[in-house]
Order: sequence, then C-alpha cells, then structure tokens
Amino acid sequence: MTIAATPAPPYYAVIFTSTRTAGDNGYESMAQAMFDLATQQPEFLGFESAREEIGVTVSYWDSPEAISAWQKNSSHLVAQQRGREEWYQTFKVRVCRVERDYAFQKD
Amino acid sequence: MTIAATPAPPYYAVIFTSTRTAGDNGYESMAQAMFDLATQQPEFLGFESAREEIGVTVSYWDSPEAISAWQKNSSHLVAQQRGREEWYQTFKVRVCRVERDYAFQKD
Repeated sequence: MTIAATPAPPYYAVIFTSTRTAGDNGYESMAQAMFDLATQQPEFLGFESAREEIGVTVSYWDSPEAISAWQKNSSHLVAQQRGREEWYQTFKVRVCRVERDYAFQKD
Repeated sequence: MTIAATPAPPYYAVIFTSTRTAGDNGYESMAQAMFDLATQQPEFLGFESAREEIGVTVSYWDSPEAISAWQKNSSHLVAQQRGREEWYQTFKVRVCRVERDYAFQKD
C-alpha cells in the first residue's frame, strides 16, 4: 500500500469510513477481491487504506459516472450486501470532487 | 476515534495520506496537540484517521476558507515544518468538496 499516484485535479474521491463487526467471516479475502476488481474498472485512479479503531479507505476516480458504475457493479453489489449483513457495524460513504492537491517527498 | 458526524453536503474534506520516518521523535504528542487545536478552529466538522503501512487522515470543514485558515495557523505551521523535517517520508494533501454521502448503521 502506497500513496496513490493521481493526476492533476480535478478528479474524484470516495471516502469509505467504517467500523467492523467481530471476526473475519470472509472479509479479508473479499476486500482483496474487491480491490483487484476495482483496479480493473474504467477510470479507476488508485486506492489508499488503513484500519485501526476505524477503517479509512479512499478510492480515486476520473469522474462521478465511473464511481456510480462501480457502485452498481454486480460483484460489488454482492460484496456490499455481505458488508451490511456481516462485516460492518457502521459505515459512511462520501463522494468528493478533489479540487487541489500537493505532495511532499523527503530528499 | 469514531466516524465523523458531518452535516448534509456540501462540505469540505482534506485527505492527508502519509508514510512516516522511523521512530516517534515527538510525533504522537504533536499529532494529539494538532487534533486538539483543529477541533477548536472555526467551521471544523470532524476528523477520521488510521495508520498501517500508510496513514490516512481526513478532516472535515464547512468551507475552503476554513481549510486555508487552518493551513496558515501559526502553531500548525510549526507542526508542518517539523513534519517535513522529521516525521514524514512522503505525504499528499487533497482538498475536496463532498458532494453526496450516505451512511449505514447495523441494527
């Protein structure tokens, strides 16, 4: 996992913040499968994720239409359903337009 | 750390993604101090953060002007300088407009 190499703004971000239920229950393998599938979608730009008390996952996309298409992807819909039934205690999804960005790299 | 209780969109998000240098070097106490100071700023809405291989921290604000004011806060400028010198190997800051959101809460 590294910082996503996104293009110059504007582009779009989906911030997915969550708390998990207890136990794995197939979560880790599905999370990996959904990551692999997302990277194959049109206009997918990158992914950043970490989990401690809460999980914060951000995916980056070229357009809101690409985000809507991914949210309606049939395999992703199955994963979303299992997420609500088994894996997540609570989550919030925020769809954002990235308006400016800057980066730092240590020498 | 919980999922931030943000208002109805539109509002603004700053996604700060980073990789750390080795050792604490005062990082944790400064991170807590900056969290405490951010919560006192005008138009601050909330904060979400987790770190594994990378750190993903999102702060939420009512306006881009509030974000600019926080980025120029004198105590925060000192912390940003130490961040570049000591704490971060690399980081990226993305300023975003949150256009829509939705939430799930398990029964």
